[in-house]
Amino acid sequence: MKRRDFFRNASLAVVGSSIAAPVRSLAAVTGSSATQAKNIIFLVSDGMSTGTLNMANMLLKRKEGRSSEWVRLYEEGLVKRALMDTASASSLVTDSAAASSSWGGGMRVNNGSLNVGPNGEAYKPILQKFKSAGKSVGCVTTVPITHATPAGFCVNSKSRGDQADIALQYLDLQFDVMMGGGAEFFSKEKRKDKADVFGRFRQKGFAVVQDRDAMLALQPGAKKPVLGVFHEDGLPYTLDAQQDAAITKTVPTLAEMTQAAIRHMNTNSKGFVLQVEGGKVDWAAHANDGAALLYDQIAFDDAIKVAVDFAEKDKNTLVIITTDHGNANPGLFSGSKANANFDRIQTYKHTNDWILRGITRDFSAAQVIERIEAAQGYAITQDEAAQLLQHYAKTDGDGLYNPYKLPFKELALIQRRYNSIGWGSMDHSADYVELAMLGPGSEKLGQFVKNTDLHYLMLEAAGMEVERRKLSAR
Amino acid sequence: MKRRDFFRNASLAVVGSSIAAPVRSLAAVTGSSATQAKNIIFLVSDGMSTGTLNMANMLLKRKEGRSSEWVRLYEEGLVKRALMDTASASSLVTDSAAASSSWGGGMRVNNGSLNVGPNGEAYKPILQKFKSAGKSVGCVTTVPITHATPAGFCVNSKSRGDQADIALQYLDLQFDVMMGGGAEFFSKEKRKDKADVFGRFRQKGFAVVQDRDAMLALQPGAKKPVLGVFHEDGLPYTLDAQQDAAITKTVPTLAEMTQAAIRHMNTNSKGFVLQVEGGKVDWAAHANDGAALLYDQIAFDDAIKVAVDFAEKDKNTLVIITTDHGNANPGLFSGSKANANFDRIQTYKHTNDWILRGITRDFSAAQVIERIEAAQGYAITQDEAAQLLQHYAKTDGDGLYNPYKLPFKELALIQRRYNSIGWGSMDHSADYVELAMLGPGSEKLGQFVKNTDLHYLMLEAAGMEVERRKLSAR
Repeated sequence: MKRRDFFRNASLAVVGSSIAAPVRSLAAVTGSSATQAKNIIFLVSDGMSTGTLNMANMLLKRKEGRSSEWVRLYEEGLVKRALMDTASASSLVTDSAAASSSWGGGMRVNNGSLNVGPNGEAYKPILQKFKSAGKSVGCVTTVPITHATPAGFCVNSKSRGDQADIALQYLDLQFDVMMGGGAEFFSKEKRKDKADVFGRFRQKGFAVVQDRDAMLALQPGAKKPVLGVFHEDGLPYTLDAQQDAAITKTVPTLAEMTQAAIRHMNTNSKGFVLQVEGGKVDWAAHANDGAALLYDQIAFDDAIKVAVDFAEKDKNTLVIITTDHGNANPGLFSGSKANANFDRIQTYKHTNDWILRGITRDFSAAQVIERIEAAQGYAITQDEAAQLLQHYAKTDGDGLYNPYKLPFKELALIQRRYNSIGWGSMDHSADYVELAMLGPGSEKLGQFVKNTDLHYLMLEAAGMEVERRKLSAR
Repeated sequence: MKRRDFFRNASLAVVGSSIAAPVRSLAAVTGSSATQAKNIIFLVSDGMSTGTLNMANMLLKRKEGRSSEWVRLYEEGLVKRALMDTASASSLVTDSAAASSSWGGGMRVNNGSLNVGPNGEAYKPILQKFKSAGKSVGCVTTVPITHATPAGFCVNSKSRGDQADIALQYLDLQFDVMMGGGAEFFSKEKRKDKADVFGRFRQKGFAVVQDRDAMLALQPGAKKPVLGVFHEDGLPYTLDAQQDAAITKTVPTLAEMTQAAIRHMNTNSKGFVLQVEGGKVDWAAHANDGAALLYDQIAFDDAIKVAVDFAEKDKNTLVIITTDHGNANPGLFSGSKANANFDRIQTYKHTNDWILRGITRDFSAAQVIERIEAAQGYAITQDEAAQLLQHYAKTDGDGLYNPYKLPFKELALIQRRYNSIGWGSMDHSADYVELAMLGPGSEKLGQFVKNTDLHYLMLEAAGMEVERRKLSAR
């Protein structure tokens, strides 16, 4: 199907919320008269359930007296909004690989796959398409840059788990900016094959930066592609980083990476396409770690602000803000102390991740109580501390991204009494998710879309020829 | 503040999603050229978290090959959408009384109160305002008609709990249609004061109907106000009712009540205002009862269809579709069997409520297994059955609307293995909620609103003079 027909027939059909009353048009809002997006910034808070979005906003309002940037865009009516169906080919509940592939390749694939269909079919990733069209392209994330969400915009791989290979694919692709964590997949010390992948990137002409200062010192306008890897695994959680001068000095925030990526790529007269992932929002949800979740969601929100500020000045940029799936469906739940409990989070110093990694099986209950009080300002009971400690003997903790089997679930259940946050699970949900857009192309957004629709919307917004695949295969 | 100034200053400020591209206007969609709403139908799925909306849609798509009416409106772009902040004066997490009061009286009050402020201030309920303006007004619900959500549109009361008094207030108000459950607050046998309130309604000229046939036989256009009370307490859950010919014969569905109420009130040349509540969606969420939740959400969706079909023909009707707060934040969660487990719900015959009410402490584990298998088509294990039975000795079950302390929570935890649905709580959440509107007045909806904004939007949509209270007091 050619692009002229596409929007007439697909679920993205342009539909109206135009009204007779006074209206500020999107063009007025973004200052744009462009009909095509020169640039696209696609922001993903990975694994963000509705409760994550609203609790982050409530926390900011009560702590700083301001709305989140995401909610501000709604309050001021600056965006188009939709609900998005996030399913994959294999499940109503997607994983991040299939979710990013739906956007990246325009097809639903099985969970775990990156732009490879059930019968081995490869779907060309969207950043390869944009690169071929002459645009600069890149990804920034708080998890390994080889992780599922950036990878879904970049590569084909049967398995998201093969991050060592994905790092090598990035070498060949020579994308303009790839930044995040995941040094273990680039350094010869950590890779199983002992290959010096950092060295190969340098040989191939990349600027390889491994700390914040080096990133900030990058020459804007330099033609060199950039690889930025700031941590062995995922970057530290925002809340913990804020307490640690060594981290803040060496590891950039997501907003800083976003700023640096835009600055680097905005020199291309044909424009750029950038994916920005708040990847540790998902990891925090998997751990039912409320402090990690909300402060990383706020860090993601800071990156939204960078993107929106740029788009408002640039006037030719489509900004897409969404998540790939719900995770854990957290909520602030009813109770006489709900407000007071929730307000405690304003003065938290550390995440549950920090708390639990610092406890060893030889801790006394009193030491556990002390550590939690130092981190989050409340004293759990002796019984609760003893209950937590039991799990250090057994190392039986649930949750993804929990290599040491720490008792994240048990701590979250105990914390319920102190922060009023409840969790439905330690994994992804099938919830339809929040999606917002502004800038040229956003007018094409319907009120209810499939994740795959965004692939075609991005190409269409940028004025690229779209060959839409059979709907039946989606 | 006079109404001309209102939309310029308040958070409802008209904001744009107007675009240059082809657009079907709302006027085209509703066939309306009206600038004022003659009628308003306000539909509330009580306690509907995002997961409830999306699981009901997924269930319908997989079972019947169709979208829910709510999601269809989005798919076809027929509505304006917003996120709504649902907080009350006393908590970030509202109860239904404060939530309905925010819409009904335009002010946030403390949880438990109906249009009465912390210092005893009374705020005039919106159906009284519309009644004074000559419109017909009414409420239909699946819970007692004296319950918090209808009451918040009708009366002032310090305490939502005083349903016996609320029934008497309804007598004085003489609203045109009040239908639902709650005979215990009207019948002399059940009331503590032994007053024959049904008799008083008849004396005062009401048509009092107590079964479905009597409701269907009501003369349209008759001037008589109608009191319809079809059950002692809340109406039976939809799924259980569908299995019971005696119930389907005597108890109308929410869609049928909606249809009857519209037919009765649409004879008024000055129009009508109707609240429609799917009240047992909330009760099901409090019980973590997935079958009850999803089939009652679908019954609510059938009522949406009645309202939208009417509005499309009428062309002068504002339809508002929302919920008052999240509850329990359920989700279909990840797992290799998520699809197959979720598909089981298609052939469920009975709710958890039916299962648990039918078990007694002298049941054997085998009998428990048999009852659940008959109701929902899967066999739990002996251990799981024994675990459930333990709670019949203790009668220690959690959850609101659980007078017999049945083990709803425990059953939901066991069921997780069989239906992949998880729950974050047995109570309300602070989640921002889904809000959709169509018809004249909907153009005034911003993308992010406070619950109180809807009070003023309804009055404004109907062309009534609005004296907006100080924002600081909201």
